[in-house]
Amino acid sequence: MATRITQSRILAAALELFNEHGTGAVSANRIAERCGISKGNLQYHFRNKQEIITAVFQQAIAEMDSGWYRDHLAPTLEHMAAMYVRQLQLILKYRFFYREMADLLRQDPRLRKRFADNRERRMRELEKFMLALQGRGLMRFPSDPRRLRAIIDVTWIVNENWLNYMDYHDRTVSVAAMLEGYGEILEVLRPYLCADPQQITQESYLTIERLAAQASQDAEDSTELLAI
Amino acid sequence: MATRITQSRILAAALELFNEHGTGAVSANRIAERCGISKGNLQYHFRNKQEIITAVFQQAIAEMDSGWYRDHLAPTLEHMAAMYVRQLQLILKYRFFYREMADLLRQDPRLRKRFADNRERRMRELEKFMLALQGRGLMRFPSDPRRLRAIIDVTWIVNENWLNYMDYHDRTVSVAAMLEGYGEILEVLRPYLCADPQQITQESYLTIERLAAQASQDAEDSTELLAI
Repeated sequence: MATRITQSRILAAALELFNEHGTGAVSANRIAERCGISKGNLQYHFRNKQEIITAVFQQAIAEMDSGWYRDHLAPTLEHMAAMYVRQLQLILKYRFFYREMADLLRQDPRLRKRFADNRERRMRELEKFMLALQGRGLMRFPSDPRRLRAIIDVTWIVNENWLNYMDYHDRTVSVAAMLEGYGEILEVLRPYLCADPQQITQESYLTIERLAAQASQDAEDSTELLAI
Repeated sequence: MATRITQSRILAAALELFNEHGTGAVSANRIAERCGISKGNLQYHFRNKQEIITAVFQQAIAEMDSGWYRDHLAPTLEHMAAMYVRQLQLILKYRFFYREMADLLRQDPRLRKRFADNRERRMRELEKFMLALQGRGLMRFPSDPRRLRAIIDVTWIVNENWLNYMDYHDRTVSVAAMLEGYGEILEVLRPYLCADPQQITQESYLTIERLAAQASQDAEDSTELLAI
């Protein structure tokens, strides 16, 4: 089996197990078992579990980064919903990381740096996007840039923590739960919207439902791929 | 040594060690050592580390609960700052819990239930408080109760996650960082304020500085107590 294919199978199996049981309860052996490869073969690709965690995280960052740099070229309210929901979906996909974030980042300063850089870049992209919305007359933000930054910060903190918040309340993470998360984000932005909030909510929900349906289709496809 | 004094010394030592190293890296033996008591003596009070974690958490909940039920009797904007900052300070005090929350709550369904109940109660208290502020003409919220609830949810999510957010960015958790956290919460509430935001910010900051100074004094006192 080619190296790249084996590596991505290892990472897919690790992600599944980490999401199910947490990184603490999953050994490298168990990951090898889930892939149907030998312990030695796994070690040829990744020396230990920490290396696997780092690789999964790098895959997550790469996936989150892809596309962001183009967002401000599509300054519509529908695209705003798509942006936040895309991030909610990626958090769902890599949920072990968001659950154990504080611990994982404390253990690995390089990971922490990479994560902080990624978030900082994301904040700047969101700022550009919001200003583009303002340029099109769709929103009107306070003129103090620190206030705009605070508003964006808040939407991001809600976005990153929404699925954990659902978890703590024993709520199933479903499309409805994601919709609710975006509803809360929209509540933060609502005072700055120039358009009719009712209509925006309606449009956003349609976008979210479409994206969520697409995501579950993708998930099925990748499970089938893994089963081959 | 009386049972209660020994127990609270054990819990204080455990809290210190959990905050420094995380619960995973701290054994019951190490807690006994830090207290200067024997392993047997510690086991007489708490059978294992999980029992200690649960006890520390119950102490945190009790501390967070105390006072809340009276908050809506003092519906001023100064008191609003005091409420959020009190919670930020308690999160700082019990920070291991907020760092490892997802894991700790997944491992212990009873803890999770207790935490969810506590948060739900807190949300209802905050709602009462905000409506009392509105009753006094200090704020004006949307009439839809779901929107008010979403606004309160968001302030709470920011409050609970602010210190972790500082951690990820390698920022020292200081009075300035707490001020900044409250600034973000205020940004969420600002569109609904009837009073002059400048003045509120000024007053809130004075309150926060006073509370923070008080908190560091308390921390010094309790360290001295522990050293006796």
